[in-house]
Parts: sequence; structure tokens; C-alpha cells
Amino acid sequence: MAKSDVKVLGAWPSPFVMRPRIALNVKHVDYEFLEETMGSKSQLLLQSNPVHKKIPVLIHADKPICESLVIVQYIDEVWTSGPSILPSDPYDRAVARFWAAYIDDKWFPSMSGIARAQGEEAKQAAIGQVEEGLVLLEEAFGKCSKGKPFFGGDRIGYLDIALGCFLGWLRATEKMNGVKLLDEAKNPGLCGWAERFCSNGAVKDVMPETDKLVEFAKMLFAKFKAPAST
Amino acid sequence: MAKSDVKVLGAWPSPFVMRPRIALNVKHVDYEFLEETMGSKSQLLLQSNPVHKKIPVLIHADKPICESLVIVQYIDEVWTSGPSILPSDPYDRAVARFWAAYIDDKWFPSMSGIARAQGEEAKQAAIGQVEEGLVLLEEAFGKCSKGKPFFGGDRIGYLDIALGCFLGWLRATEKMNGVKLLDEAKNPGLCGWAERFCSNGAVKDVMPETDKLVEFAKMLFAKFKAPAST
Repeated sequence: MAKSDVKVLGAWPSPFVMRPRIALNVKHVDYEFLEETMGSKSQLLLQSNPVHKKIPVLIHADKPICESLVIVQYIDEVWTSGPSILPSDPYDRAVARFWAAYIDDKWFPSMSGIARAQGEEAKQAAIGQVEEGLVLLEEAFGKCSKGKPFFGGDRIGYLDIALGCFLGWLRATEKMNGVKLLDEAKNPGLCGWAERFCSNGAVKDVMPETDKLVEFAKMLFAKFKAPAST
Repeated sequence: MAKSDVKVLGAWPSPFVMRPRIALNVKHVDYEFLEETMGSKSQLLLQSNPVHKKIPVLIHADKPICESLVIVQYIDEVWTSGPSILPSDPYDRAVARFWAAYIDDKWFPSMSGIARAQGEEAKQAAIGQVEEGLVLLEEAFGKCSKGKPFFGGDRIGYLDIALGCFLGWLRATEKMNGVKLLDEAKNPGLCGWAERFCSNGAVKDVMPETDKLVEFAKMLFAKFKAPAST
């Protein structure tokens, strides 16, 4: 496979962009990473994802594939000679897909809601929702991993990628708000998993450093708050 | 397969509940339909879907599977001897999953927004969004069906089920608001498809009549508006 045959359009701070990158690393597929410029959208992005105009986009053999979890499933189905990303059993696949949808539809909106919260009460409510979600995900980790290191068992799988891509922003959110969201006492399984996930060979080079994300978030806040202060 | 081995927890007016029912019909799998009582949640539902407490739930061999599109994929992967629901080509699968996500995340919220709209301006905006979405879906139909009767080709597939389950409510919304959303001039492909889909053997017995949905909607509105009028 020529390197230029597989491209990812993305941006380093985006957790959703990490998903196809990790999936391609798991499959040992080389790819070209095309970084979008902050605040503008390339012609290639607009052509490749005319409906949402959003990253990530995977371009494989000149065909665009959009939506991060759709891309991860595509990667799993195309590069079948590499390690499997989805579980092989249909019920386990359904459970992985269920929790991935929960993460995107419920849990991550709560986490990003911490930064958007207006006032201390709303912020504490969002923090509470994130913590409740992590208790559910701790339970899911126990059931999915069955005592093994990852949701996917011995290897990083679909649910590892779906949740793990948010670990950088989880740590940055903790640091910026002086809170502990992933807690050793309440989430012992997830704490160990998070360490293993972030240091995994398929992940460590694409997982941004917490301080770099904090800097990025401060820059974003300054930018969006600027008009109101003038 | 004993009939009682496959159960669907649902309610007749729910488009999401139609998805697993149509998928099981496509696969010629008998199932028991357990109708939830309007306004309350059964103990079986609360036990089976403790995270969202929502229908539909498929119970197969005593294991619950939740979230309508997750269930449809599960059905496709378990009953492999029946006709395939997802396309066989990975790119076509990705395209079907992309549009199914678009329908749930963007298009259907616009359609249900017509009923929720406060004031004429908001209502017209929601109608405009639905119509724009149908233009995109008309284009998707052309590309996916490749001149055949369904998104899935010769047979009902994943995207047919994902969009088709909303046809009853689309027609009821048209009737209640005196508008034509699915338009012969703008959506010629989808108009023909909608007819074929609703009269298909796997669909016709689970697709509610438009008038019955209109009655149900009026009853719902009366119920929710009642407290404000006292």
C-alpha cells in the first residue's frame, strides 16, 4: 500500500481525529496526515465532507469516508489482515457499539459542557454528570475486558479507541478546573486502563500532552471571549 | 428458533421500534412483540436498558441489545442465513452508516422540530431544514441504489430501514401542517422509493397508518398542553 493512498484530514487537538489515526496504527497501515489550519477549512475538506464540513476524513484510494466511528469500522473491515478492532462475537460487537454511542451522545457532551457551563452551579452539575458516566463506564470496562488489559481484551479495540481518544482532554479538563474526574477509588479499572492505553505503541505518538491541550484551550477561550470584551 | 427466544420491547408509534421489527422481518425471524404501556416503563424495560430506559430493546436468548441501529446490525450479524442488511462492500457499508447517522443526528431532529417549533417563523425554518435534508437524501438515494429499487439495491437494506421507519411520521407531519415535505418534483427518486418501501412485505404490517399517527399526535399534544391551560 503506497503511503499516499491513505490520508487523514485532521487537526492534532481533535479527539475524533485520533480515532482513525489509532485504528490505522493498530492495523500497521501507513498514512499521510494532512493537518487542517485552525479557523479555516481546506478545499479538500469541503469537497470530501460536503455535508458536515468536519474533520476527520479518511481518504482511501481517492474515496472519502467521514464520521470517526464510521471510519474506524471501515478501517477494521478493509485491513482484515491486521488485528481485529471490533470484537468477533455479534453480542460483544453490539455492546461495544452501544457504549461507543453512549460516549458520543451522552458522556462527551457532559465533559465538553464543563468548559461551556455558565456559573459554578452549572459547572458542578456537568462535573457530576461526567463522574456518573465514568461509574457506568467502569462497570462496562469490567464486563467487556473480562479481567484483561483493554475493553477489547488483550488488545486495543473499538471501545478503547472510542473512549480513549478523550483521555487527553479529560486530563486537560481536570487540570484547568482543579478537579479529579477519573478517580482511583471510584474508577480503579479505568485508571489502570487509561495508563495502559496512553502508553500503547498505537496511541502514544498521537495522544497530545496535557499541557499542550491546556495551552490550546486557553488560546481558544481567549479567542471566543475577545469580542465580548471589546 | 423458538418464538419466545426473540423479543422486541417497543410501542407501535415509535419509528425507532420499527427498525428491529423490519430487520427481523427481512431475515424471516419470528419474534414476540412486547408493547410497553404509554406513560410508564415496565420492569423488564428498566432491567434491560438501565442506561437509557428507552425502547426499542431486542432480547435474544435472554440477552438485551439496545439502540435501534445497534440492534439492526446485531440482527444482520446473527442471522447470516437470511438476506444481508448491510452492504457487503466496506465502502458501501461506510456510506450507509454515514447517512444513517446523518438521519438520526440531523434530519430527524429537524422533522420532530416542526411539531416543537414556537411560532410560525421557527416552524418554517424547521420545514426548510427537513426539505434541505431530503434533497441530500435524494442524491444519496441515486448513488446508493444505482438505479435499483432500494438504497440497498434489489432488497431493503440498512439505509432503507434507517430512513424508511420515519415515513409514517413524515406523512403525519405533512397532514398536520398542511405541507408537502416529500415532493415529487424535488425528490422523484425518494417518492417512488417510499411507495415501494411501505408496501414491502417486511414493512407493511409494522408501518402505522397516517391517520392513526395523527390521532396519536393530537392525543400527545393535548396531554402535554393540558397543564398550561389550567
